Order: sequence, then C-alpha cells, then structure tokens
Amino acid sequence: MSIRTSTRVRIYDVAAAAGVSIATASKALNDTGRMTDETRSRVKDVAARLGFRPNAMARALLHQRSFTIGLLTNDTYGRFTLPLMAGVSEALVDQGVSVFLCAIEDDPALAKIHVDAMLDKQVDGIIASGKRIDRQLPVDLENLSVPVVYAFTQAPENGVSLVSDDAAGSREAVEWLKGLGRQRIVHVTGPRSFASVEERAGAYRAAVGADAQVLFGTWSEQWGHEAVARLWDAAGEKPDAIFCGNDQIARGVVDALRERGVSLPADVSVVGFDNWEIVAEATRPPLTTIDMNLKELGREAGRLVLALAAGEAVAPGIRKLPCTLVVRQSCGGGPRS
Amino acid sequence: MSIRTSTRVRIYDVAAAAGVSIATASKALNDTGRMTDETRSRVKDVAARLGFRPNAMARALLHQRSFTIGLLTNDTYGRFTLPLMAGVSEALVDQGVSVFLCAIEDDPALAKIHVDAMLDKQVDGIIASGKRIDRQLPVDLENLSVPVVYAFTQAPENGVSLVSDDAAGSREAVEWLKGLGRQRIVHVTGPRSFASVEERAGAYRAAVGADAQVLFGTWSEQWGHEAVARLWDAAGEKPDAIFCGNDQIARGVVDALRERGVSLPADVSVVGFDNWEIVAEATRPPLTTIDMNLKELGREAGRLVLALAAGEAVAPGIRKLPCTLVVRQSCGGGPRS
Repeated sequence: MSIRTSTRVRIYDVAAAAGVSIATASKALNDTGRMTDETRSRVKDVAARLGFRPNAMARALLHQRSFTIGLLTNDTYGRFTLPLMAGVSEALVDQGVSVFLCAIEDDPALAKIHVDAMLDKQVDGIIASGKRIDRQLPVDLENLSVPVVYAFTQAPENGVSLVSDDAAGSREAVEWLKGLGRQRIVHVTGPRSFASVEERAGAYRAAVGADAQVLFGTWSEQWGHEAVARLWDAAGEKPDAIFCGNDQIARGVVDALRERGVSLPADVSVVGFDNWEIVAEATRPPLTTIDMNLKELGREAGRLVLALAAGEAVAPGIRKLPCTLVVRQSCGGGPRS
Repeated sequence: MSIRTSTRVRIYDVAAAAGVSIATASKALNDTGRMTDETRSRVKDVAARLGFRPNAMARALLHQRSFTIGLLTNDTYGRFTLPLMAGVSEALVDQGVSVFLCAIEDDPALAKIHVDAMLDKQVDGIIASGKRIDRQLPVDLENLSVPVVYAFTQAPENGVSLVSDDAAGSREAVEWLKGLGRQRIVHVTGPRSFASVEERAGAYRAAVGADAQVLFGTWSEQWGHEAVARLWDAAGEKPDAIFCGNDQIARGVVDALRERGVSLPADVSVVGFDNWEIVAEATRPPLTTIDMNLKELGREAGRLVLALAAGEAVAPGIRKLPCTLVVRQSCGGGPRS
C-alpha cells in the first residue's frame, strides 16, 4: 500500500537530512546518548521540519519496551473474556499500552503460535485467562522472558494470580436470603469437579448449618428444571429459597417453579451467580445474583502486569477479589442500601 | 523487570561485538543494503554466537510492517465481537500477524485514544466493527495512513465493507417454513429504525406475498411474549409459523406459546435469527435459526485487510456474505441434507 510509505517520515529520513547516523538521530530525539548540543538541536529541528513523529516501535527498540500486552484467553463464549478485556484495556489505555487478544480455544498448538508471536513482538507482559481456576492453560508460560499474570486459571507455584472470592460471594447470597427471613435454603449448582463449585458449596454449608442441602449437576437451564422436579416431587417440606451456582441454572429453576404455579418471590426466593445480564435480566422475574466484578478483576490484572513489566516488586500468590450482590426481583427485598 | 534486559540480546550488542553500526548490523541480518560478503557473514556469525533472535520490531522498522492489525469494536456484549475476532485471528495467525482488540464502548474520546495508540504502533491495518450496518463508529477512520476494512458498521463511500446477507437469510427462513407446509407465516422483529430489520422484513414480504404481516418491536424476549399475546388475542385464524428477527425474540415467542398450551412444533413452527447458542440451545424446544457465519466474516475481513496492507487491489463496496439455516427442533423437519 503505497499510501503508507509515501506519507510516513522515518527516522532514516531524519538522519539523512541531518547528516547523522540513525543511532545518533534516535538518541538526539530521545534525549539520550552523548553528542554536542548543536547536533542534538539540529536533529530535532530537522525532525520537526519533516513532520517526523517518533514512533512507538522506534521508542520500543530504544527502551526495550513495546507498550503492548498480550491477553491469552481460553474462553470462546466471551462470558469471561469481554468484561476482563474491558478492564485490562481501561487500566492500560491511558499508559499508551495496547492489548493483543489471543484466543487459544484449548488448542496447545494454537496457544504456542500465539505465545511465540507475542514474544516476537516483545510484549511487555502477558495476562493468561481461562474459565476455571483449577485448570492450567494448554501452554507452558513459566520461564518466559516477560512477566505473566494469571486470571481465572491455575497458576504455577509463585505465579501472580487473580480469582474472584467465591466463598465470600456464596456467604453474601446466603446472608441476603436469611435477612429476608428464608429458612430452608437449598444450593443447586454445577459439577463437583470444579474447584469453584466446591468453594461455593463449602461456604454455603458453613453459612446454613445442619440443614444444608447441595444438589450438584451441570451448568445448564435443563439442570435447573431437573433439580426443581427432584425437590418438589420429594416428600416433606419444600425449600423457601434456592441459591444457584450460576445464572443459567437459576433461570431454569425460576422457569420450572413458575410452571409449577409456585409464586416468586412470594413463596420462594432464587439467587443466581455471575450476573450475566443477558440471562439475569431476561428471567421472569429478573434475577438477584452475585456479580464477580470481572471488569475490576481485569483492571487489577492490567495494573499488576504493568507493575511487573516496570520491575516493581509484586508478591506472588492468589489474590481473591470481592463479589457483589446485585438485587433484582427474584428474591423480594428492596434495593440494597 | 531485570529478567528481560538481562536475557535479551539486542541488535546493539550484535553491532558492538561485530564492530559495525546498528544500521549495518540490521542490514546484514536482513540481507539488504550494500556491504562486503565478509562483513555480512561476520555479523551473522556474531549474531548466531550471541543467540540473537531477529525481533519483530526490528524487522518492522526495516520493512515498515509491524505484523499487527487493530480490531476496533463497538460491541460490549461480545455477541458479534468474539466470533468475528476468532475468524480474524484464524486468518492472520499463520502469517505471524497479531491482533490488537480495542473496545471503544461508543465513546468518541476512547475511540480516538485507541486509534492513535494503534497508529503509533504502526499497525498494518484496522478492522472496524460495530453492531449496526447503518451506524458509523464514533471516530473518523478516513484518510488514515493505513487501510481500513469495515464489518457490520457503516463504511464511508469507497470503503471496503462486509455484512451478512440479511435478505438471503430471511428468504431461507421463509422457504424452510413453506417447505414444511406452513401457510400463515408472521414476522416478529426488532425496531424499524435498524436497516437490517427493514432488509429482513422486505425479503420476508417478497417471499410470503399478500398475506405478509410484520410486527416491529424491540430486541427482547419480552417483546416475543407481547407479540404472541397480540396475535393470539386477536380474532381470526392464528399463525402456523413465526419467523423472528433475532433469537431473543424467538425465545420469548416460544415460551409464550408453550404457556398458552400451543404445541411446538406440531401446531406452530418458530425460526430465530442469530444462532446465538446460549439462547438458541436453551430454548424449549431448541431453536431452528439463521446463522450469520460471523467467524467466516471475520476470516474474510482478515484476508482483505492483509491484502490491502500488501498493496493488492481490492474493490471498494459492500460485500454480503451468506447466512446458513441451522435446524434444531422448533420447526419440525429433520436435519437438512
């Protein structure tokens, strides 16, 4: 595309016009290196006259910084990636840092290609994100020459990693239901093999006590329907609240209850987990749910990777970020103060 | 982070060890410029001995290519962005091209910052994507020094742009319903102000003929419920098929029909538009729907921007890419041959 080369003034042009080497021109413009004041100001005058715009790549070569970050993601639906990405970008854009998004689709070969391409472009750091805190990405990021921050994926020992505080989110849901006077609170959640499922269920059990009842299943509306059938077809007293492991399950639970003629939220309160708006807002009634604050988590990941890239000391280990209860209509209770 | 500078051998190191200027070292390694064979091979030997890895930025400075592309997006939900991004990435990753993702959230100031950051990093091209083909992004991309390809957003005159073929998708839905023997096909769709709504409605009317009936509303499940109430509460014969403008409307329609005791697909067939799997698969019964092939659209956008960056001739204008009918259970009819 001839437009580009014809309109862009390069450092080579400045050096030639000023009668100095490229290295000298570069140093003059960056106020580094040793030269006479006369030479430095001559180079700057020539650069200004030619309309030279010091470019990021040239600066990067000189400073060994590219002002780019790579975000590796293993989440094809975008449920986690997009809010995370928005937060990362928000933390970095004011610093002039741009983000490469690399979706690896659980494919080790693809992951390797993306990582090599990022290293080749000398990213200042990498944020590795997944969907599960108990699974590693299918690529080894230890011993890279750039810092790595992990988000929602298993980090190596001494890695810096960010997750949401599942246990605290779970406690918050149960406390909200108790505060509404609910006494028979059941937990309907995803597969037991997920660490976050065990974490949430453990906190639920601790908050509810001896009457705790957990139904493990899949992350689907279908499972919400099945769980309600199991609970309502059983003998004995019915639950007056259901705390669900994600919003899809909660939507299935709400639909199943409505179809049985159970009144929400008069007779039963339902809380979800995720605050996935497309699901939570379309549920009838709209879901009260736990938000993992993924955008803030992304911001924190961005801040951490920049700090590491700048050589600042960052303590390794897992950082748990707070969740927030978002009140809609599926539980009763007014907006929170 | 001292790891980086200590482990990375720079072109400066190679030049110093070989006793040549940086420019000469760079040219020697890239097989350009004029020098003796002895000098060139000495530089190469030194580079190999030091473990110098010619880096993308150095290559970029020399060739005026950065092997990066920017994807500007105005879609915060990720409904369009993620599949598009996956396609773009697929088309580019093998060429060593990485993608900057820049979410601009309809904010002109943020868009300007992202565009400046991309130009500063000398991207080889930009793909600008939105949610509506009749709205421009809130940033002017004309007269940039890099090529731009538009996807799902309004392009300037003489721009290169990609959209899905809404009219053909609409025809395909109607023909499928007719092939199942449906005779009273109604179209329930989004707001009239969207160009894609008019395009789909126009093709629907042309395919259905005199009996065509279009209900315009919002892109929501709620509107699906309202539309069914309006149709079923009216006097006269009921529809035996409803073609919906998106999957959310279709999900509302299906739920409303089930709650009225209408049997799907025995009495009424429902077709959606989008193939947004999170919605289409959870609908009971799962939705037959039109897929816009966003990933393929992304691949094509990637191929076009690379071609433009390489200086190839690309005809301006709007390219309409085909849609595909995805058959599930909401219409009856077996899988398509």
